[in-house]
Amino acid sequence: MAAPLVTLTTDFGADSPYVAQMKGVLLRLCPAAKIVDITHSIAPQNVRQGAVVLADATPWFPAKTLHVAVVDPGVGTQRRMIYAELGEQRYLLPNNGLLSRLARVAPPRRVFALENPDYFLPQVTSTFHGRDMLAPTAAHLLLGAAPETLGPPLDQLVDLHWPEPQRQADRLAGEILYVDSFGNLISNITAEHLASLGGEPSNRIVEIAGRQISGVQATYGFSQPGDLIALLDSHGRLEVAVVNDSAARRLDAGEGASVTVF
Amino acid sequence: MAAPLVTLTTDFGADSPYVAQMKGVLLRLCPAAKIVDITHSIAPQNVRQGAVVLADATPWFPAKTLHVAVVDPGVGTQRRMIYAELGEQRYLLPNNGLLSRLARVAPPRRVFALENPDYFLPQVTSTFHGRDMLAPTAAHLLLGAAPETLGPPLDQLVDLHWPEPQRQADRLAGEILYVDSFGNLISNITAEHLASLGGEPSNRIVEIAGRQISGVQATYGFSQPGDLIALLDSHGRLEVAVVNDSAARRLDAGEGASVTVF
Amino acid sequence: MAAPLVTLTTDFGADSPYVAQMKGVLLRLCPAAKIVDITHSIAPQNVRQGAVVLADATPWFPAKTLHVAVVDPGVGTQRRMIYAELGEQRYLLPNNGLLSRLARVAPPRRVFALENPDYFLPQVTSTFHGRDMLAPTAAHLLLGAAPETLGPPLDQLVDLHWPEPQRQADRLAGEILYVDSFGNLISNITAEHLASLGGEPSNRIVEIAGRQISGVQATYGFSQPGDLIALLDSHGRLEVAVVNDSAARRLDAGEGASVTVF
Repeated sequence: MAAPLVTLTTDFGADSPYVAQMKGVLLRLCPAAKIVDITHSIAPQNVRQGAVVLADATPWFPAKTLHVAVVDPGVGTQRRMIYAELGEQRYLLPNNGLLSRLARVAPPRRVFALENPDYFLPQVTSTFHGRDMLAPTAAHLLLGAAPETLGPPLDQLVDLHWPEPQRQADRLAGEILYVDSFGNLISNITAEHLASLGGEPSNRIVEIAGRQISGVQATYGFSQPGDLIALLDSHGRLEVAVVNDSAARRLDAGEGASVTVF
Repeated sequence: MAAPLVTLTTDFGADSPYVAQMKGVLLRLCPAAKIVDITHSIAPQNVRQGAVVLADATPWFPAKTLHVAVVDPGVGTQRRMIYAELGEQRYLLPNNGLLSRLARVAPPRRVFALENPDYFLPQVTSTFHGRDMLAPTAAHLLLGAAPETLGPPLDQLVDLHWPEPQRQADRLAGEILYVDSFGNLISNITAEHLASLGGEPSNRIVEIAGRQISGVQATYGFSQPGDLIALLDSHGRLEVAVVNDSAARRLDAGEGASVTVF
Repeated sequence: MAAPLVTLTTDFGADSPYVAQMKGVLLRLCPAAKIVDITHSIAPQNVRQGAVVLADATPWFPAKTLHVAVVDPGVGTQRRMIYAELGEQRYLLPNNGLLSRLARVAPPRRVFALENPDYFLPQVTSTFHGRDMLAPTAAHLLLGAAPETLGPPLDQLVDLHWPEPQRQADRLAGEILYVDSFGNLISNITAEHLASLGGEPSNRIVEIAGRQISGVQATYGFSQPGDLIALLDSHGRLEVAVVNDSAARRLDAGEGASVTVF
């Protein structure tokens, strides 16, 4: 039988020893656990970026993988920690919108608030619920604990607004969803939206931060270092990039910036 | 039976291929080893930060976990590599004070100098003892080698001074122990020290780098981005932070800076 | 039996969620896979640095380890993905010179172009062949797929020029091969080259970027923070470093810079 699989996504910073503490707690309770890091480089407390990363990365994992996420501006407040099943995957995370992007495609099933202290560390600090509540609860789930023993069911998850690009005559008005680790600007405009405009993407103009970019490319392969380009990324989203450099810095643009294609 | 567990802590930098070499050597000798990274982002040759990270992170791991640490300003000099048992855990590291913070709580037991070349790589370079001595020795220990075959016992470990905060009338004079990966300033003042002052932490003033901060909070949850705050971190230590930013940069303060609470 | 071992080397950036997608695909098809990160901090599209890192790190791993590397400026162009056996190790990577440094020591054996779509994801994007082609092919190889079923054999791998230092009377003229994650400048001059000059390395002068450094040291151990030094690194290569700082930044020097020893 394969080892029970759990992933971690946090805003603790790449290579943070706080992540190691979570792993220690997990392995102490469930030595067989197989732990995979998704990323710990979510911008601090950036729930929207966390939501996009979870939506992009988690569906690639084996069915029933348990995904633990800690992007938690509300630690120490009344926000609740939850367990949820969604698509083929399972999640343990704060109820703050982190699942809201995934939930646009598949509604969460079997949602429970984490209220069973038997699954927490004996001492729960007010600043590190990832280690004190989520890691031990994850271990118990990997060992076979039934989700309904975690706490009361919840009907409603915190939702975030994910704006859709607007079609205006022969143009699309979208916006930047997040900035990736290369400084690439990832928009809410998809290959399908572009197709709906008709014509070749390579003949379109992309306008952002007062700059116009000629043509949406299919790849980085034909560009030169320093070129400002627009391309469709591996998730089929329109992305604005500077080859070998940061588009966010070059354009001084970030999350929420307007992007227009015409 | 669970796979034998080993952790790695170094100052090689996040994502360093030198760490991968250590993992390759470990897995070549002990393919079943389960390797967990604690951090590779210790500031270069900062033994004090390494000592604090080991003290914070390693006790969370399963009993008998083997913790390998390489923060080694003395590589190539006469400092010795050692094996030590301390608390429930086992350690392989240079004898330079890395265990001195853990040793304040539990004295090291069964300490041996690493002098048995049978456990080293055939060729030991003068610059990379982590790969050439520690990684293969770790593999042999995971495979069951007896610690007393590693080399002669040692009585005395290198110690570092860990200053305690001073109580002066109704104030505490402490100092910054280290800067974490968020730029938070972690002090040697604990929740217990604060409690000894009496009154509510939320009514105290924290003074650092010529700035005064009103109240010690229990969480980040009620602050705004950019706020300079003092709070008790998940280890119960007084921490000075800027929400979503670096307090070290903002205050131009670091290890050894004075912190006063009154 | 030990779990099948696979390593990952990319230029996606430390802690990139794109790496996690590759791991998800790998584990979905081969849940028993044991995945080790070599590094994801190759400078974007820097094939030469990738080639050096693969040559330095991969031979330390157990025989038959499968090494997947994605440093791929040509994604979306006609460059081919390949499988190759070289030394004791196995590789899956773009045919762009990534193996050319290893190939100087041991010629590649059993090279196949990846053309069998049965081993790819059902949908192969134009921007992420690491996830869509390499990760699933790696999983199939770990599960026992025969290399000759991957595609047609290839005779010729893309080669890169790796200049050797030139001996001129009593001096060696070399160059910087790459800059490591500390900002250390790693040259193509080895301990053997230095030995061929005769005399003590500690009596030599190293000239780079208009600066002269007295003596090649065996270790960092006797230098002060901020010192500009030359030393032999753990691979026996002449390295120019600033203790606790970046030599690349201090000297404004990088790949291809001239280094002379006399």
